[in-house]
Amino acid sequence: MKNVIRIVAVCLTAATLLPAYAQFAKPDDAIKYRKASYTVMATHFGRLGAMANGRMPYDAKLASENAELVVALAKLPWTAYGEGTDNGETRAKPEVWKEAARFKDASDKMQAEIGKLNVAAKAGNVEALKAAFGPAAASCKACHDTFRKD
Amino acid sequence: MKNVIRIVAVCLTAATLLPAYAQFAKPDDAIKYRKASYTVMATHFGRLGAMANGRMPYDAKLASENAELVVALAKLPWTAYGEGTDNGETRAKPEVWKEAARFKDASDKMQAEIGKLNVAAKAGNVEALKAAFGPAAASCKACHDTFRKD
Repeated sequence: MKNVIRIVAVCLTAATLLPAYAQFAKPDDAIKYRKASYTVMATHFGRLGAMANGRMPYDAKLASENAELVVALAKLPWTAYGEGTDNGETRAKPEVWKEAARFKDASDKMQAEIGKLNVAAKAGNVEALKAAFGPAAASCKACHDTFRKD
Repeated sequence: MKNVIRIVAVCLTAATLLPAYAQFAKPDDAIKYRKASYTVMATHFGRLGAMANGRMPYDAKLASENAELVVALAKLPWTAYGEGTDNGETRAKPEVWKEAARFKDASDKMQAEIGKLNVAAKAGNVEALKAAFGPAAASCKACHDTFRKD
């Protein structure tokens, strides 16, 4: 019964975040999809970090393009934590489902910081990007620390 | 020498498709990224197919959102076929590099069809979506048939 409540809570959370179209044929499809969305997001987020940290020359147009991709991708994984997706090839901790409200808060926080990063990436100067990158990266890390296995 | 020419051809192709920021620390990172971008793209493309084929109710807003994602993702994998990415966990056939110009043509064709699909997805009726989905799916398959292992 407790598990049912948890699953319903996660589904309601997902439904709040994204509409009902986000369904998967099998739990493994959902796991593969959410991991893939994080992989693509991390690549483009990493490029913003490289510009912010001076490992890559700052380019306003590329910063904006990368940030747009990160914003679009940051919306995607959350519907893919439905029933049965706690097992399999995943590093998601049981806390994702046990503490669904906290997980939702962490995902909301991340998306809010990514939104600010997107605004900063469009400011046309590297200082703005630097200022927004740290809090955005911290919001990723906060979620990983609690909800992802090492 | 032939391999060097091939690699240069692929890199030039990639440079035409996307700017120089699309770099990866290791070939395996590039392979993981391109596979992930296809996974996310295929999920959203599949939802358009489900609507076009009546397995899912048609919803104009969702069709548009899914198509936007597919357009954004369809631009991504092509820079991730650089040097050293022909080995490893990949189903890419040697033809990707041996026939770089043909591979570029296939990727251009796919992106053109996805562009049309995006227009059709915004038409607000399922008939338009149905008409555009077939050619878009065919452009995916054409590339898979030639350039991807089963």
